Amino acid sequence: MYHATIEPMNTRFSKRIQHVPSSFLREIFKVIADPAIISFAGGLPNAELFPVAALEHATQRVFAETPKEALQYGDTDGVPELRQIIAQSYKEKDALDVHSEHILITNGSQQGLDLLGKVLIDDGDVVVLDSPTYLAAIQALALYEPRFVSTHMQNGAHDIASMCEHIRTEKPKMIYTIPNFQNPTGLTYTNEEREAIASAAREVGAFIIEDDPYGEIRFEGVRQKPFLSLYENTIMLGSFSKIVAPGMRLGWIVAPESVMQKLRVAKQAADLHTSTLVQYIVYRYYTENDTNAHIKEIAAAYKKQKDAMLSALRAQLPSDISYTDPEGGMFIWATFPEDVDTAALFKIAVAHGVAFVPGESFFANDAPKNTARLNYTAAHEAEILEGVARLAKAYKTYCENNNLG
Amino acid sequence: MYHATIEPMNTRFSKRIQHVPSSFLREIFKVIADPAIISFAGGLPNAELFPVAALEHATQRVFAETPKEALQYGDTDGVPELRQIIAQSYKEKDALDVHSEHILITNGSQQGLDLLGKVLIDDGDVVVLDSPTYLAAIQALALYEPRFVSTHMQNGAHDIASMCEHIRTEKPKMIYTIPNFQNPTGLTYTNEEREAIASAAREVGAFIIEDDPYGEIRFEGVRQKPFLSLYENTIMLGSFSKIVAPGMRLGWIVAPESVMQKLRVAKQAADLHTSTLVQYIVYRYYTENDTNAHIKEIAAAYKKQKDAMLSALRAQLPSDISYTDPEGGMFIWATFPEDVDTAALFKIAVAHGVAFVPGESFFANDAPKNTARLNYTAAHEAEILEGVARLAKAYKTYCENNNLG
Repeated sequence: MYHATIEPMNTRFSKRIQHVPSSFLREIFKVIADPAIISFAGGLPNAELFPVAALEHATQRVFAETPKEALQYGDTDGVPELRQIIAQSYKEKDALDVHSEHILITNGSQQGLDLLGKVLIDDGDVVVLDSPTYLAAIQALALYEPRFVSTHMQNGAHDIASMCEHIRTEKPKMIYTIPNFQNPTGLTYTNEEREAIASAAREVGAFIIEDDPYGEIRFEGVRQKPFLSLYENTIMLGSFSKIVAPGMRLGWIVAPESVMQKLRVAKQAADLHTSTLVQYIVYRYYTENDTNAHIKEIAAAYKKQKDAMLSALRAQLPSDISYTDPEGGMFIWATFPEDVDTAALFKIAVAHGVAFVPGESFFANDAPKNTARLNYTAAHEAEILEGVARLAKAYKTYCENNNLG
Repeated sequence: MYHATIEPMNTRFSKRIQHVPSSFLREIFKVIADPAIISFAGGLPNAELFPVAALEHATQRVFAETPKEALQYGDTDGVPELRQIIAQSYKEKDALDVHSEHILITNGSQQGLDLLGKVLIDDGDVVVLDSPTYLAAIQALALYEPRFVSTHMQNGAHDIASMCEHIRTEKPKMIYTIPNFQNPTGLTYTNEEREAIASAAREVGAFIIEDDPYGEIRFEGVRQKPFLSLYENTIMLGSFSKIVAPGMRLGWIVAPESVMQKLRVAKQAADLHTSTLVQYIVYRYYTENDTNAHIKEIAAAYKKQKDAMLSALRAQLPSDISYTDPEGGMFIWATFPEDVDTAALFKIAVAHGVAFVPGESFFANDAPKNTARLNYTAAHEAEILEGVARLAKAYKTYCENNNLG
């Protein structure tokens, strides 16, 4: 039995677990558990848009038709029918000649990051990434002890020229990117930027990791080319979390056969395979429903929410704060004047009943203090308007307290 | 796009992935895909015993009552109600004072091995284990590059004195054990053996990993004490795979708070959390059903199957082959005369329409050639009898071909 006061004497943990940056997000989520707080802090899809009835029906059919298959151990690679649907979707979206043998089913795209770190990264290998970027990618890869080389945003945009220079000089093992509606900035690489990155990657033989959980949630502008159409040494990560439901924990890796062989070994060691039941449910859901229509519905709802938040921010907060204007995805990135500390602002905002994520959480190093991530998908439009009003009051208080503005 | 003939030039994989022993099992499963072959090779529970109707009903209630919670992102630790049920089960089974905050939900107990390797093992740390043992445990831990120190079975039993000596001299970071109905041998440590191992572990401050996927499937004898009741520096792994259904991929880790803190970081990096939907289904299933009665039903069925196989083996094969007689779980371990090569016998057996796993797959090193693992849970009693008859013929052929017997 465990005794709270007598912890085991052996507290020798691995070196690698000491390398993982602790997540300020976890602390934030504790603070904002109070339902009176309007939260722009999370990264949750809107639960009102989950296709509950369709998933329920799909599940009934799984239990009626293939219960034993869905409840028994399955293939490490995943359920073949589901992998076929994913392969087909790349043909339709991007005319990519992806086959089901290139696809490994994972527990959300997050697991893809862990498996890729495991099979590709040795201690000291270089990983090039944008800064800021998805915090949990840094955490997942940090366990394999790479050296991160990051390129900071400049003037509200990714600095692609600098990233390409880093690729050429540092010769990384991998380049980690979220090319569509990046978390946390909402920014999208243009086709020209993708070509420049792919070209630099090709010169040094680096893998490009194309993490694309949001790509289908585009509500404005034109779909850009996936890296895989430009460069064969690309590994894509996909997810059903934003287009079906995240509680499923269902994602996938698209990789060439040489990498797949290693990924299979790592996946088997990690958890044998992803839940067969969940895979069968989502497979059935895809065969029974117009999933593209559902994705359009999600995108249309998120566009309204994004527009509402951005208009309100521009109307109610001072004009020296700049914002990204995402063409899809879930996040707006705010840059405050240089002397603003958003971690201090966060505390005042919570006291006013609204929360966001101070931007420094998303930097691997040299984090500026004056940025923030705002999520517009989890709150209703009325909540968004009220939340922005609270944020405006909080910011006014913060400026008064600090003799700013 | 990927081209089968033009593989990416970058084939530099991590050193750690080279350390994972390849699984002969994978090759075996390809050979025995033919449905005409009676397989004693797998480790599958009997799908006839899956509680399909009860799970279907539980799922209906989840969709009716808590669909948004079950489909949204959840806690890294797991669904609190499910963790509470697991904690309570330890109170009832073993009077262990385990609380839900000691429990982390994982994707089967396999993921527990990966997470423990991640947070505990540095390159070169010593892991003490039985030989033979669960192959996928060796694979999962090998990724973290420990030095394995294994103790071979002697005269059909685990050599506990030798294991304790290894613990005292090698001062391992962890001792990996399957104390109940071990995979692959079916052997169970006695209370005295557990006390001896716990005592040695305490002297050197090693963690004991108590992997217990089969413990509840006891059909004979008396439940022995869990290591956690003897030694506080114990980490337990549990699973719903054998008592509900493996396709769920649902298991758990029981660990003291200091270890839990690190495991949470590793779990978040690995896949954020285990499927909320699956957790809610199993939670509902537990609240609505007499799960102990169902487990008794499974155990009773497996006892019949074990008895059928063991009697047939003893009746139909030569008496110089010895077998373990498990009190639970899923496997019988056969030891043939020393000059028998079970890998060669396997090929002849497959030609006769029956399969098993040659025992050498389960050894970290110095594998003997004359052992085999036989699974009795996946085949019906009639199939078991026919399979053993085929095995007897195959063995006769093998002995004739090799001038044995």
